[in-house]
Amino acid sequence: MHNAFTNEEYLALVNEALDGFVPLCGDERDLVAKAMRYSLKNGGKRVRPVLLLEFTRVCGGDVNVALPLACALEMIHTYSLIHDDLPCMDDDDFRRGQPSCHKQFGEATALLAGDGLLTLAFSVASKAPLAPERLLPCLTTLADAAGYLGMIGGQTMDLQHEEQTISADLLRATDRLKTGQLICAACRIGCLAAGAGQEKIDAAQCYAENIGLAFQIVDDLLDITGSAEELGKPIGSDEEKNKSTYPALLGLDESRRLVGELTEQALNALRCFDDAAFLASFAEKLAKRTN
Amino acid sequence: MHNAFTNEEYLALVNEALDGFVPLCGDERDLVAKAMRYSLKNGGKRVRPVLLLEFTRVCGGDVNVALPLACALEMIHTYSLIHDDLPCMDDDDFRRGQPSCHKQFGEATALLAGDGLLTLAFSVASKAPLAPERLLPCLTTLADAAGYLGMIGGQTMDLQHEEQTISADLLRATDRLKTGQLICAACRIGCLAAGAGQEKIDAAQCYAENIGLAFQIVDDLLDITGSAEELGKPIGSDEEKNKSTYPALLGLDESRRLVGELTEQALNALRCFDDAAFLASFAEKLAKRTN
Repeated sequence: MHNAFTNEEYLALVNEALDGFVPLCGDERDLVAKAMRYSLKNGGKRVRPVLLLEFTRVCGGDVNVALPLACALEMIHTYSLIHDDLPCMDDDDFRRGQPSCHKQFGEATALLAGDGLLTLAFSVASKAPLAPERLLPCLTTLADAAGYLGMIGGQTMDLQHEEQTISADLLRATDRLKTGQLICAACRIGCLAAGAGQEKIDAAQCYAENIGLAFQIVDDLLDITGSAEELGKPIGSDEEKNKSTYPALLGLDESRRLVGELTEQALNALRCFDDAAFLASFAEKLAKRTN
Repeated sequence: MHNAFTNEEYLALVNEALDGFVPLCGDERDLVAKAMRYSLKNGGKRVRPVLLLEFTRVCGGDVNVALPLACALEMIHTYSLIHDDLPCMDDDDFRRGQPSCHKQFGEATALLAGDGLLTLAFSVASKAPLAPERLLPCLTTLADAAGYLGMIGGQTMDLQHEEQTISADLLRATDRLKTGQLICAACRIGCLAAGAGQEKIDAAQCYAENIGLAFQIVDDLLDITGSAEELGKPIGSDEEKNKSTYPALLGLDESRRLVGELTEQALNALRCFDDAAFLASFAEKLAKRTN
């Protein structure tokens, strides 16, 4: 097994690789390339690529071989944010304290930058230096998680819940698709890239489902209790938009209790891995984060 | 080699397969699924899938095995039309005589339907029943042709030429990316799926480049000389938008001469294939089409 990486080492790996995957080419196409690079570089905790790489490592795989897959996942996450921020969707002018892509480059270029990142994700992933029969299931997992039965399905459900109160169950079903699917894909692809067996893939899936939902509940809590400076966006925006949130539906205390319970279940799922200290600490940090 | 197919037989194969690839699932996600199906079903000559399947056939491959790749290409073409029609892009209310996707379903759903088709293309393609080492180069070709250095690059260049006159060379460079790349990908992937050698792949590329440009010039000619009824869109829309077109830059006669010359070159490229009657006739019909 590879020696342990720190979160900072993973971030450095991912950020450098992402930069290399969107070179400028010196002609008019660079307009969209610059918009793609702008959004890719805009902060981000790189949660999905870090999870993918660490699952590859704990399953005995080569982190460098899995790196293109990790970057592909971050590209898909970034494209979804660019399109989500557009005026016809959430109409957000800021993302992580910076002007959103369409505020910086205009709507048409932002639309194409999102399309460009989604497409580039599959180009980059299809060239990962893995055995073809191992790589193909990774690509299928990526596409299905991002697709209309996965993440896009969650965004579609979200559209239909605007300005209305929904049940906690429906909110959970929406989030399981909208944010949960890519997090599950990260953990599963990490295992698949290392050639792990079904037991480990199932455990990774269980870990992912629990931290994915906890992540979303913490997001909602921070919108109420966080500071605008730390978050890089105004607080209270969910309430202003009449969004159904876990704290609004379940109360602050129950929401916090649920985060604790989900994190506990995520930690339990790690028992079949030999060297799960990083993943355990990662789940705990996500639950306690302030931005 | 497979027996010859007629164009109608290919259309029936492709349309039935496309339908099966976007099943409804009976919950809120169906909103986007319906928009995806609406745009996929809206007419279309299925130029790209037909080319892909016929190149597979003339290279001795199995048309049914290549069918998911052909459908993936049509999904990518369709997504690009949905996003191109959006208000922030060309702002077109009609497509092939029907309301465009955002006029029918709203902008947010149309945006997601485009994203959904692009993503589904890679899901469907990644499951084509080909040997993994043969399938992977098909996926890479698909993603690169559609990407920011390919089709999206062409759309980006197009954005920057709005309301200005450009040279015929720059128009050609733009079209080579914007419409040419997917047509080239169709012909190349057809060969790759059949395991063809480099000579045939290069010949397919040459055929594709020539018919791709001819196709675009005919499009421009029809906008001037065609009938609105046959085209399913108002004629004269290019001139109204001050679009640089081949007839405007080169004149009607030179544009028609160029279509003839390009078609001739496409036919010449077919010499290395044993049974190229369909492809020859296809190129000729594209040059003579009235819609």
